Amino acid sequence: MPRPPDQLRALVEDYLADLRLTPELGGLAEPVQHALGGKRIRPVLCLATSDALGLDVDGALPAAAAIELVHSFSLVHDDLPALDDDRERRGGPSVWAAYGEAAGVLAGDALLAEAFRLALTYPTGDVARELIGATLKMIGGQWLDLQGDGNREDLHRLKTGALFQASIVCALAAGDVPHDEREPWREFAAELGLLFQIVDDLLDGDGYVLDVGEDGARRLADEAAERAHTRLAAIDADTDVLAEIVDELATRTG
Amino acid sequence: MPRPPDQLRALVEDYLADLRLTPELGGLAEPVQHALGGKRIRPVLCLATSDALGLDVDGALPAAAAIELVHSFSLVHDDLPALDDDRERRGGPSVWAAYGEAAGVLAGDALLAEAFRLALTYPTGDVARELIGATLKMIGGQWLDLQGDGNREDLHRLKTGALFQASIVCALAAGDVPHDEREPWREFAAELGLLFQIVDDLLDGDGYVLDVGEDGARRLADEAAERAHTRLAAIDADTDVLAEIVDELATRTG
Repeated sequence: MPRPPDQLRALVEDYLADLRLTPELGGLAEPVQHALGGKRIRPVLCLATSDALGLDVDGALPAAAAIELVHSFSLVHDDLPALDDDRERRGGPSVWAAYGEAAGVLAGDALLAEAFRLALTYPTGDVARELIGATLKMIGGQWLDLQGDGNREDLHRLKTGALFQASIVCALAAGDVPHDEREPWREFAAELGLLFQIVDDLLDGDGYVLDVGEDGARRLADEAAERAHTRLAAIDADTDVLAEIVDELATRTG
Repeated sequence: MPRPPDQLRALVEDYLADLRLTPELGGLAEPVQHALGGKRIRPVLCLATSDALGLDVDGALPAAAAIELVHSFSLVHDDLPALDDDRERRGGPSVWAAYGEAAGVLAGDALLAEAFRLALTYPTGDVARELIGATLKMIGGQWLDLQGDGNREDLHRLKTGALFQASIVCALAAGDVPHDEREPWREFAAELGLLFQIVDDLLDGDGYVLDVGEDGARRLADEAAERAHTRLAAIDADTDVLAEIVDELATRTG
């Protein structure tokens, strides 16, 4: 019987609270820890995928945490004055607003590097390979966004979709699921990432809402959720909790 | 017969010139390429180590390039206004001065991520593991330096020594040299990194020169060079070219 999302979230929180950063980071540990708040959507997804397949959920924790660290890295750098210039993040000061711009740059670097240190605790480089592909897409997506180039779909696929996909595929990589069995999961992940992003746009009143209006965006979200359910139903695993996560993402209000 | 440094440098230049960046980086490729100048000291050291052991030098090229990319990543971020605020690098504009601060942040991120993509082209995660340890130390060292904390030795070990060590050990990792045979190489690398840094201080008139004067620093450099030669002589490999590199680093004027 797969564990409910809240139980998985508690596992992630405990793991991150106990995470021992590289000692040589010294005082940079404080801004790094400051950056590690959030809803844990991606790591929970990673653990839920592991659980759905009856894999070792504890064994997926380093991968799940690595994904969360890559997510945090991207937020810390995106918040910098030269990029999105956000002083606030999750109801408090962003890293650079709290600790200065140099800390914002270096804490972001440290988060990315720690993510790969965690991903490389697995015997093979497979988890790290999945994660590096997603990271490069995110960086390219952020650049595209800053340039004001690129269509909505490309932007979302790079900035959000890639790490959502990695959240799921890293669970397979951590559990040594053969590559040729990963494709249906990638397809599910693509729909889930799209769903997440459209709902994000609905909550922020931007992105797809500007393109197709609120009703149009709601319809696109519902369609993505439906496709995610269809993809999931085609996968041979105990996917009840993942289906619950699809519904949670479709109906979330924050 | 090991190849001379110039031949190895040409291999590195060709490999970097042909390097295909992740397509999704899009227009960010230009500032990334802009950052990839330099003397190639670290990648040449990597290839020379591979050659000294009779390993496949071409097979060490992705590792050598990954090291150069990590080095470039650190320079691009260190040059940012919030850190060292350097508008110039290698006789031209630094990345942020040429392309703006956002490009400086994201091109640095892309260089780090591309480095790990290259390091992960090896079947095992061993090269990437060596590299991530060095990267984390460099980030911690840069933070320490900005805080004005830490003694000269710690700063040099973290900011310079770690990547010099990785330059050599990544060649062993790329060639699957067993872990228990790597220690003598690490000891050699530590002396070489120290030598490099003291000579750097002599050329810039800072660091050790401020601590012990020019003559004192010259003496420390000569002692480090001598210890490097002693360490090297104890290693069972064709180390003539590496010995030549020690002398080149000891006597370099730029």
